[in-house]
Amino acid sequence: MQMQLTHAVKRSRQVNRDGTATLFEGRRHSWGQFADRVARLAAGLVEIGVEPGDRVAILALNSDRYLEFFFAVPWAGGVFVPINTRLAPPEVAYWLNDSGAEVLFVDDNFTAMLEPLRGKIDGVRRFVYLGDGAVPDGLVHYESLIDGRAAMADAGRRGDDLAGIFYTGGTTGVSKGVMLSHTNLMFNALNVTPLMHFNRWTNWLHAAPMFHLADGTGTFAVVLAAGGHCFIPGFEPLAALRAIQQYRPTDTVFVPTMVNMIVNHPQVADFDISSLQRVIYGASPMPAAVIERALQLMPEIRFVHGYGQTESSPFLTALDPEFLEREDPSAEKRASIGHSAAAVEVRVLDENDQEVAPGVVGEICARGMNVMQGYWNKPELTAETLRNGWLHTGDGGYMDADGCLFIVDRVKDMIITGGENVYSAEVENAIHQHAAVAECAVIGVPDDTWGERVHAIVRCKDDASVDAEALIAHCHQLIANYKCPRSVDFVDQPLPLSGAGKILKTELRKPFWDGKAKQVN
Amino acid sequence: MQMQLTHAVKRSRQVNRDGTATLFEGRRHSWGQFADRVARLAAGLVEIGVEPGDRVAILALNSDRYLEFFFAVPWAGGVFVPINTRLAPPEVAYWLNDSGAEVLFVDDNFTAMLEPLRGKIDGVRRFVYLGDGAVPDGLVHYESLIDGRAAMADAGRRGDDLAGIFYTGGTTGVSKGVMLSHTNLMFNALNVTPLMHFNRWTNWLHAAPMFHLADGTGTFAVVLAAGGHCFIPGFEPLAALRAIQQYRPTDTVFVPTMVNMIVNHPQVADFDISSLQRVIYGASPMPAAVIERALQLMPEIRFVHGYGQTESSPFLTALDPEFLEREDPSAEKRASIGHSAAAVEVRVLDENDQEVAPGVVGEICARGMNVMQGYWNKPELTAETLRNGWLHTGDGGYMDADGCLFIVDRVKDMIITGGENVYSAEVENAIHQHAAVAECAVIGVPDDTWGERVHAIVRCKDDASVDAEALIAHCHQLIANYKCPRSVDFVDQPLPLSGAGKILKTELRKPFWDGKAKQVN
Repeated sequence: MQMQLTHAVKRSRQVNRDGTATLFEGRRHSWGQFADRVARLAAGLVEIGVEPGDRVAILALNSDRYLEFFFAVPWAGGVFVPINTRLAPPEVAYWLNDSGAEVLFVDDNFTAMLEPLRGKIDGVRRFVYLGDGAVPDGLVHYESLIDGRAAMADAGRRGDDLAGIFYTGGTTGVSKGVMLSHTNLMFNALNVTPLMHFNRWTNWLHAAPMFHLADGTGTFAVVLAAGGHCFIPGFEPLAALRAIQQYRPTDTVFVPTMVNMIVNHPQVADFDISSLQRVIYGASPMPAAVIERALQLMPEIRFVHGYGQTESSPFLTALDPEFLEREDPSAEKRASIGHSAAAVEVRVLDENDQEVAPGVVGEICARGMNVMQGYWNKPELTAETLRNGWLHTGDGGYMDADGCLFIVDRVKDMIITGGENVYSAEVENAIHQHAAVAECAVIGVPDDTWGERVHAIVRCKDDASVDAEALIAHCHQLIANYKCPRSVDFVDQPLPLSGAGKILKTELRKPFWDGKAKQVN
Repeated sequence: MQMQLTHAVKRSRQVNRDGTATLFEGRRHSWGQFADRVARLAAGLVEIGVEPGDRVAILALNSDRYLEFFFAVPWAGGVFVPINTRLAPPEVAYWLNDSGAEVLFVDDNFTAMLEPLRGKIDGVRRFVYLGDGAVPDGLVHYESLIDGRAAMADAGRRGDDLAGIFYTGGTTGVSKGVMLSHTNLMFNALNVTPLMHFNRWTNWLHAAPMFHLADGTGTFAVVLAAGGHCFIPGFEPLAALRAIQQYRPTDTVFVPTMVNMIVNHPQVADFDISSLQRVIYGASPMPAAVIERALQLMPEIRFVHGYGQTESSPFLTALDPEFLEREDPSAEKRASIGHSAAAVEVRVLDENDQEVAPGVVGEICARGMNVMQGYWNKPELTAETLRNGWLHTGDGGYMDADGCLFIVDRVKDMIITGGENVYSAEVENAIHQHAAVAECAVIGVPDDTWGERVHAIVRCKDDASVDAEALIAHCHQLIANYKCPRSVDFVDQPLPLSGAGKILKTELRKPFWDGKAKQVN
């Protein structure tokens, strides 16, 4: 019998019927109520035409209903498509059309976007209103899909059947739909649980956006453990502090900027945040100063440095804070993303997919039942990403003798100059330490002598300036000669960003590489 | 990529290379050494002719080599067959011949059994000696299979490929080979880990026999967690206490008689057993007096009441002691076998495989990736046991409103008399409270009026006696009228026992039911 995402809800109803499932703005549902609402909402979805495999999208801030949506859609046999709430209408239209979504759930924050989308998303037949105000014209109210309806039996999809499509913003310009099955998401939950010690007394704060699988690290695992969930619509440090005091969550996931905003908030000491036991952080590097301040301010909280990507549902590695306490508290280890998840194979491979020795940089690759089914409607990209049976993360890194993994750069951002590997992230760190620099990106550009040349693109602060010679001299004080930029372009405009806020180096590389051999897709 | 049992060893080598894998009688191997030895032993197995799917049996007491065996056999592509160390030679021959084992590992305790087996196990081509003494004639030494050999690449079996065959003693007389796949055993490990909090700092004491999956609850999960293992050859209370003081294990599994022997040992207070954090107990009911004394004596240890069977690899439910501490410390709940494992479906079903209401007795059934592939060479019994997609455990029980499961009896031992369910175990408990009773069994026998009649078979103590009338009167003081025996047979000989020491009620029922309708297989 294969794994089934909805099993998590059925089990929580069985083992913790009266325990709290969700707490949100004065509403509380027990697991018995939650399961009942999910099974009735699923019936409502079937009533409005959702058939097995149909895509059902959602564009909303965090709420208890978002969690119900995640289980009602597969219970009805559908496939959920969470939409990034920061997208512009044309991007939303692209995701809806690319996924072929037939139903769209929207909350009060996004009903206004339906007007600019009109005529551009003709595949979407039905719109469901998630809010509690007056139901806008042409939308069906969320609660009306549940009210008075009988619970339906689970549609029975499981195993490799598709459960959801999560789009990745990507730093390469193209948005890709990551297909995750029932097995993928449940297997991830099983791999996360031992690390996070989730159980029925866990209370997970959904503070990071629920459309993204960083929050999803906890979402499905906590439901499987019959733990509770509380929510803030979107992250704002004061709202997060208030929610922690009010809902008393035990666990959550934050991205480093969120941790930074909390620990540096002037009112942080005014709130009782003693309920928090574990915080997963990841997705981008945590500045050492921030984690140190966090550890000082919240010595009782265990900060778990996690690493993964949407393509692996998402968990791949984590540094158990107990490892630092017991084995190696060095600052170097603190920067590690830790050890492989229990039942996931994680290796560093060379360009021929052979494992490299400890300390040697290669591409971080993974195998396991948490690895995606592929990219939606992109068989060639799927074959390339999953070649030789390994998920190629695109992240360059190395493993030390303890099996601790360190990320150095995106593989495509690494530069090979005169036979030496240069990690753009390291050079950018050096440039950033110059007081005049507002923003920078380091790329490899073609060079007849060295193959590639280290090239920097820099925007200075409005009231400051530096020239190339001075900036290169500054770098020489910090990093090895071969890593220092050989050339610098200064720009006035902000660097181009992806939807996820990452610099689009692909765009920056294009003028240098057009018609040349380096793969820059 | 499907799950692979040997992944556990490869990961432990990756994440805890220098950490302790095994400690046994002065020998210590790190995970790096353990993985290396496993891969070389696997090469040795291939060298002596083990091919993919071949069965390799072991008849030995607990040791570090037993653990290596569990991983070297599947690494080589083989299927392990652990043999019950309490069997007589004809039973050992039956298991070896039934499984078609081609290789047999034996330690010093069982080399003497090879003589009575001679000529009766002609399928076994090679014998491997696990001990450290002089190698008996015709046997190849364990270490010689490893010494000087190069590590081989994993044979690559995984997923539904068979990893092991575990024979169940059974209370029905027929020994059945339970086929467990790589997925079955790994999935079980993932389900056990959140409950037991296994991690790299776990140290598992193998005190219960390793041929049985009760100890196996920890075996594969602790390897997956990169935790350590220590061993005593067989259970003896003083040896266990010494081992706990010496090896400082954190976790183990005991059957209730082992707990009883430890807590009532006169020297228990002389030993430092403070390293123990968690003890799983199960397999048979724990007398209330024993668990109370254990909790008094070892207040720091968490006793986890677990339930499962070989057919489910084995874990199905457990009562997290935290549940008692936080939610319901009642004596009644302490008798519960607790909640379903996270990713396993456990339900109580009626004879049509429909779920019964809370409090109603039915058969405990389960679905999940931990459920066996079937019984070796017994397709009809497999189809019957796994009918409608559910593993039928044969255990009768009910679930309360908290989702806590209680066992009442083996299903085939339940009696329906005049429309009322009577659980033989409950009647036996009442009879046992009479001072004259040494042994008893309660069965249902045909009755023209009531369908079945409650019948007791009793052996009195050598120096005591009681008649039927007095014994029935005794029962009336303890249990409801309809549960009391209507007839009693007194016997002089001990009741017939299975290999596992359980009374063979099938044998007792036979003379009453021969040619009649009740299914007594």
